[in-house]
Amino acid sequence: MQGIEKYSVTLQNYLDEVITVKEPIQLYEPIKYIVSLGGKRLRPVLTLLSCDMFNSDYKNALPAALALELFHNFSLIHDDIMDEAPLRRGKETVHQKWDLNTGILSGDAMLILAYQLFEEYEHIMFRDLAKLFSKTALQVCEGQQYDVDFETRNDVTIPDYIKMIDYKTAVLLGASMKMGAIVANASEECKTNSYDFGRNLGIAFQLQDDYLDAFGNPKTFGKQIGGDIIANKKTFLYIKALQNSSEKDKVVLEKLFSEKPEDPTNKIKTVLEIYNASGATKETLKEISAYTQKANKVLNKLDISEKNREVLLNFGEKLMKRNV
Amino acid sequence: MQGIEKYSVTLQNYLDEVITVKEPIQLYEPIKYIVSLGGKRLRPVLTLLSCDMFNSDYKNALPAALALELFHNFSLIHDDIMDEAPLRRGKETVHQKWDLNTGILSGDAMLILAYQLFEEYEHIMFRDLAKLFSKTALQVCEGQQYDVDFETRNDVTIPDYIKMIDYKTAVLLGASMKMGAIVANASEECKTNSYDFGRNLGIAFQLQDDYLDAFGNPKTFGKQIGGDIIANKKTFLYIKALQNSSEKDKVVLEKLFSEKPEDPTNKIKTVLEIYNASGATKETLKEISAYTQKANKVLNKLDISEKNREVLLNFGEKLMKRNV
Repeated sequence: MQGIEKYSVTLQNYLDEVITVKEPIQLYEPIKYIVSLGGKRLRPVLTLLSCDMFNSDYKNALPAALALELFHNFSLIHDDIMDEAPLRRGKETVHQKWDLNTGILSGDAMLILAYQLFEEYEHIMFRDLAKLFSKTALQVCEGQQYDVDFETRNDVTIPDYIKMIDYKTAVLLGASMKMGAIVANASEECKTNSYDFGRNLGIAFQLQDDYLDAFGNPKTFGKQIGGDIIANKKTFLYIKALQNSSEKDKVVLEKLFSEKPEDPTNKIKTVLEIYNASGATKETLKEISAYTQKANKVLNKLDISEKNREVLLNFGEKLMKRNV
Repeated sequence: MQGIEKYSVTLQNYLDEVITVKEPIQLYEPIKYIVSLGGKRLRPVLTLLSCDMFNSDYKNALPAALALELFHNFSLIHDDIMDEAPLRRGKETVHQKWDLNTGILSGDAMLILAYQLFEEYEHIMFRDLAKLFSKTALQVCEGQQYDVDFETRNDVTIPDYIKMIDYKTAVLLGASMKMGAIVANASEECKTNSYDFGRNLGIAFQLQDDYLDAFGNPKTFGKQIGGDIIANKKTFLYIKALQNSSEKDKVVLEKLFSEKPEDPTNKIKTVLEIYNASGATKETLKEISAYTQKANKVLNKLDISEKNREVLLNFGEKLMKRNV
């Protein structure tokens, strides 16, 4: 892990240097606040790692890496408003600590600041990075919209769901990998493969997130266990359970997902039982493993040293074995 | 005006072609809706006009022009949320017609779509346009933040106010002019001068807007007359009136601007009387004229034909004599 830590430490130093609080304070303070809450720094680490793999100084990828972290945090600020979430990483969300307007405006500024970071690169690289960024950012918005739409839809299929998490989460991990390859001037094939690796890993990552939300260890997960069940979120687990349950359980599940009881303890308990009984839990774990394997298969096609392949393989495995 | 109309018609056709409603509908429908509400199309018309002036086919500037119009509409959607405005151009605002989340997310997508339009240009031009766009967009966010800050500040000076409207409104008109010059491959000097022309015109334009908000013809202005007074907005008129009023009027003005009466008729009447008596009205008109002259002075430095200079001069004059 020494290698990986090196990236997050360098990113943190660069972030501290670049993201400063200036006038108007009310605009820039929330930006500094949200990026200082930490998090896994998954996206920028992937970018630096990828750049390093393709034999370029990973520090060259710092602006692109930070752009992705800023974008991710921008989307967190705006998503937290939409979800009316009071907490993020155990601390107050921006709209909660300040107000709605601050959340909207600081988020907007962050998105623009992300684009500005690409100006550190010469014009062809700038164009390649900004183009990939825009395409990805728009997909993330579309993914968020699908997620919102699913709340009121009762006909969400497994492919619908996979597309939603692909757009909302996975494409950004794909772009994180690919940006490292772009900065390293890697071949087109390497760019495509690194993108596919990140994207498949991203789907596995999000399915894992859904799984942990239901079955994670409350001591290590950080978020409330059963949060998706409380919010009636149609996750992979839910859709699979609906498909595979007995008629009786199906009725129970649908009824529970139309309610928001004050005390959700019994609701969570029953839903988890149905997830297990229907085989949905097993199928989710199988799906996580399938996407991880897909990612590893692309990994084998990457034109990198065996040592580096090992690093990426371990990185993916650690991510899948995480409990946070 | 035939020349100017040509630009808005061509822009409209291009907009109809490019901005379409696709999946997810809920994300793209509000975008189509807000851009279809019309408006003066001031920013894109300036871009096309500027490109034309510098002897390039103005149609080459269509993507940049539309990017500016999208950005402007993005900022309207988010500003309307912040101002809790129910109406925009006589129709429901996006967050009113749909909801808060739709307003936030569709706005975000519009900002990204604006950036994507620059991809129509080769990489050096792409970089120049995107860089100017980011710088300007960030200033617009800062201007909006200053505007919000002013609501709770009692020490706003005239320079503070001019800086706020410069950032919130004028720099975007400067960028609109400059983008036309960039697309036309005009000289650096022309780019700078066209930017300065638009920016000075923009300050005059916003001061005019403040003036019309207080003294415009309710039949033609489109917005509610006295809207700024009702909202206790510290405009140029208000700050000047505070500076120049008798102690007695100053106390009255400050008291009125701390209240929001159900029926604002008397409040508006008294405030307008103080604006007139203090000379603030006259000083505002003088300031509008000063910035218009500043713009025209830069206009004389522009390396364009006399016929084109005439067109720009007339354009500025029409804008200043407008009553909408």
